[in-house]
Amino acid sequence: MRVAVLSIGDELLSGEVVDTNASHIADRLFQAGGRVERHLTVPDDAEAIASALTELGARSDAVIVTGGLGPTPDDLTAEAAARAAGTELELSSEALDHLERFAQRITGELHPANRRQALLPKGCRLIPNPLGTALGFVVRIGQADCFFMPGVPYEMERMLEETVLPELTGRFEAGWQRVTLKLFGIAEAAIAELLEGAIPEGSPVQLAYCVKFPEIHLILRATASDAPFLQQAAGELRQRLSAYLFAEDREEMDDRLALLLRESGLTLALAESCTGGMIAARITAVAGSSAYFLEGNVTYSNEAKTRMLQVPAPLIAEHGAVSAEVARAMAVGAREAAGSDLALSVTGIAGPDGGTPEKPVGTVYLALVDQGSCRVERFNFQGDRDRVRSITCFTALDWLRRYLLTRKTTPGRG
Amino acid sequence: MRVAVLSIGDELLSGEVVDTNASHIADRLFQAGGRVERHLTVPDDAEAIASALTELGARSDAVIVTGGLGPTPDDLTAEAAARAAGTELELSSEALDHLERFAQRITGELHPANRRQALLPKGCRLIPNPLGTALGFVVRIGQADCFFMPGVPYEMERMLEETVLPELTGRFEAGWQRVTLKLFGIAEAAIAELLEGAIPEGSPVQLAYCVKFPEIHLILRATASDAPFLQQAAGELRQRLSAYLFAEDREEMDDRLALLLRESGLTLALAESCTGGMIAARITAVAGSSAYFLEGNVTYSNEAKTRMLQVPAPLIAEHGAVSAEVARAMAVGAREAAGSDLALSVTGIAGPDGGTPEKPVGTVYLALVDQGSCRVERFNFQGDRDRVRSITCFTALDWLRRYLLTRKTTPGRG
Repeated sequence: MRVAVLSIGDELLSGEVVDTNASHIADRLFQAGGRVERHLTVPDDAEAIASALTELGARSDAVIVTGGLGPTPDDLTAEAAARAAGTELELSSEALDHLERFAQRITGELHPANRRQALLPKGCRLIPNPLGTALGFVVRIGQADCFFMPGVPYEMERMLEETVLPELTGRFEAGWQRVTLKLFGIAEAAIAELLEGAIPEGSPVQLAYCVKFPEIHLILRATASDAPFLQQAAGELRQRLSAYLFAEDREEMDDRLALLLRESGLTLALAESCTGGMIAARITAVAGSSAYFLEGNVTYSNEAKTRMLQVPAPLIAEHGAVSAEVARAMAVGAREAAGSDLALSVTGIAGPDGGTPEKPVGTVYLALVDQGSCRVERFNFQGDRDRVRSITCFTALDWLRRYLLTRKTTPGRG
Repeated sequence: MRVAVLSIGDELLSGEVVDTNASHIADRLFQAGGRVERHLTVPDDAEAIASALTELGARSDAVIVTGGLGPTPDDLTAEAAARAAGTELELSSEALDHLERFAQRITGELHPANRRQALLPKGCRLIPNPLGTALGFVVRIGQADCFFMPGVPYEMERMLEETVLPELTGRFEAGWQRVTLKLFGIAEAAIAELLEGAIPEGSPVQLAYCVKFPEIHLILRATASDAPFLQQAAGELRQRLSAYLFAEDREEMDDRLALLLRESGLTLALAESCTGGMIAARITAVAGSSAYFLEGNVTYSNEAKTRMLQVPAPLIAEHGAVSAEVARAMAVGAREAAGSDLALSVTGIAGPDGGTPEKPVGTVYLALVDQGSCRVERFNFQGDRDRVRSITCFTALDWLRRYLLTRKTTPGRG
C-alpha cells in the first residue's frame, strides 16, 4: 500500500512552525508496519491544496492530511477536499451536533465562526475528535482514501491512534520493523569503523545513522519476512558497540538511569555550577525520582559553593572554581550535606566568556563520590554555550549510568 | 520567484528524524523576503529523487535540496540530479581537492568511500562546505536553479547563509516581512475575542496563531509594499495584548528576563521542588547570568527543605509540602541563605502520583519574596508531568518578568 502525507499551512512554509505532525505520522505508520512514500507541504490556498490532493490521490492508496480545518477564513482544506473529490460542501448535522456539544462543555455557546467547521464534503465519513472542535473526515480522491485531520498535534495524534491507524493497519504488505540503538561517547566515523563487516553485503537490513546531539542513533530496518536478519544484525551491533550503547528504541537516557538508580537502592545529591540545574531537571523529569533523588545545589557563585557545599574559600582561590580540586570538594560537600549515598558535581566554563589559555571555554570537571571513592575527570568540550551545557549534562548522566552498571556487575560490591 | 524545497532521506519518511532543515530554510528565506511555495520529501531512491526534481524543476524558479550527499551507498542525490538534468556524473577534481584537504585536517587520509563524494553532475557549480566533506552544487533542472546541500543541519545552515541566500536575495519580488508577538497566560479563544476588529477587513496583513506550548505566537505577515499596514496592525495588537506580550520576534522569555534582571541590579536565589532545577537551568542558559543569579536549591525531600531553606518541619507536617505556607517559607529561607535581593520558590504536584482531592496533580504554589513583601499564589495546571513542569517553569519566569516590569515603572520603588 502506497501512503502519502500532506501537510497544509502557511506557518510551515514560512518556517514559523516545525512540522512535527509529519514525522509523528511517519513514525507511527512505520511502527504499524507501513512506510510513507512521499510527504508534501502546501500553503493555505484552496487551489494549491486541491491540486496537491489530486496529485497524491492519483499515485497513492491512502493520503493522510493535516491542517486547515479550523474556524478561521484561512482554513480552506474542507473546501479544497470537496473540489478535488468532485463534490461540494454541505452542512453536516452530525458535525454541528459535535460542535454544539463541545461548545456547551467549554463556554456554553457555539461561536458563530465555529459553524463553518460543520461544512464538510458531501458524503464524507467523519473522524471523531474527542479533544477539539475540528472533526476529521474521510473522502475518496482518485485511487486514495484521504484522511483529513486538524493540525493541532494532540488532537491529531489521538485521531490517528483511534481511527486512522486501525483502518490502515493490516493493509501494509511489507510489515516494516525497526531496532534503534542509542549511542553516546563515540563519533560517527568511529562507529563506521567498528561496524565494518558487521552487516554482510546483500543483507536486506537497512542501516541509518541519525545524529541527535549529543546522542547518535543507529537505526536498523527490515521487513517482517526479513526479521531474523534484523535480529541477527542488531545482536552483532549490540556486541560491537556495547561500550557506547545506553538505551534502545523508545527508552531514553533518563529512563535508563532512573531504572538503575531505583534498582541500586542508593540515594543521590547533586552540585551543579555550569549546568545550572539541568542535571537535576533531567533526573526529576522521571516520575518517582523522589525515591532516590534527595536534593540539588545550583552553586553558581563561589560564596554559594563555600556556604552550601563547604568548599573551602582558599581552595577556590588557589585552584580556581573550575578545577579538579573544587569539583571533588563540591561532590564531597553535597554528599555530606544531603547524607546521600552518592553525589555528583560539575563545574566548568560554558562560555562565551570566562575562558583562559589553560582552561578555555568548554573545560569541565565532573566528580562522582560514593562511600569509599571519588572519581574526578576533566573534559574539553567543543561548541557554544548551549552545546557545552548539553553535552556536560548528558556526560554526567552517562557517568552515573556507567557507575551503577559497573557496581551492579562487579562481585563484592553493592 | 517561485521557490520549492526538497528533502531527501528515508529517516524523514519513517519518522526517525524531524525535518528541521525544511523549516530552517523556510524561515531564513522568509526573512530574506521570499516564501517557499511547496515542500516535498522523498526517500533515498534515485528514481523518486529524479522524478521529484523534474516535477519541482518544471514549476519553480529555484529548488533548495537537502540530503543524500554522504559517502554511503544510500546517498543517491548526485546521481539523481545528473539524471534529472540530462547529464551524467563525472569526477570533479575541485571536489576531490576539497575532500583530500578535509581528510588531512581530520584523520590524515581520505577514506576510499569518501571519493564517491567527488562524483558530481557534469558542468555543475560547487557550493563550498567549510564544515564537512560533502560539497554542495548547483545545476539547472527544467526552469529552476537547483541548490543541493548535505542534510547535516550545521553544515547546511552555513552553506545556506554563505552561498544560497546571497544568490537568491534580490530575486524575491514580494519582500515578505513579519512581526511575531509572543504571548503567555491567555488562551487562543480569548485572544481572538480581544482582537475582534483589530485588523480591518480587506487588510493585506495575514494573521496566524501558532501554539508553542506554553507560549502562543501571533504572527503578522505582509509584503514590503504593505509594510505600513503591518506596522499599524502590530501596534494595535501590542496595545490590546500588552498584558500577555512577553517578547517579540527572535527574543525569548529567557533573554527578556535576563535583560530586566541585569537592568534591575537585583540578585536572585531559587528554591525549586516539583520543577527540580528547570527554572535555574533556564535562568543560567543566558550568558552573563552570574551577574544576578546567586544560587538555586533543588529541595526535593522535606528534609532538604528544612535543612537548606530552614522550613520548619512542623510547618510541613501541618500544611503539607505543597502549600502556600511552605512555598512562602522556602522563598524566605532561600533569600536569607543566599543574601539575595529576591527569591522565588515553587512547590507542587507534577504527577502522575501524589494528588489528593484537595490538591490534585497540577496543584502548584509559587512564592516571590523581596525585601519588603511576599507574594504567594496557587495554580491548578492541567496535563501530564511534563506539561505541568513546563508550564510551572514558564509561569515562574513570567512572574519574575512581571515583578521586575512593575518595579521599573512604579514611582518610588527601585
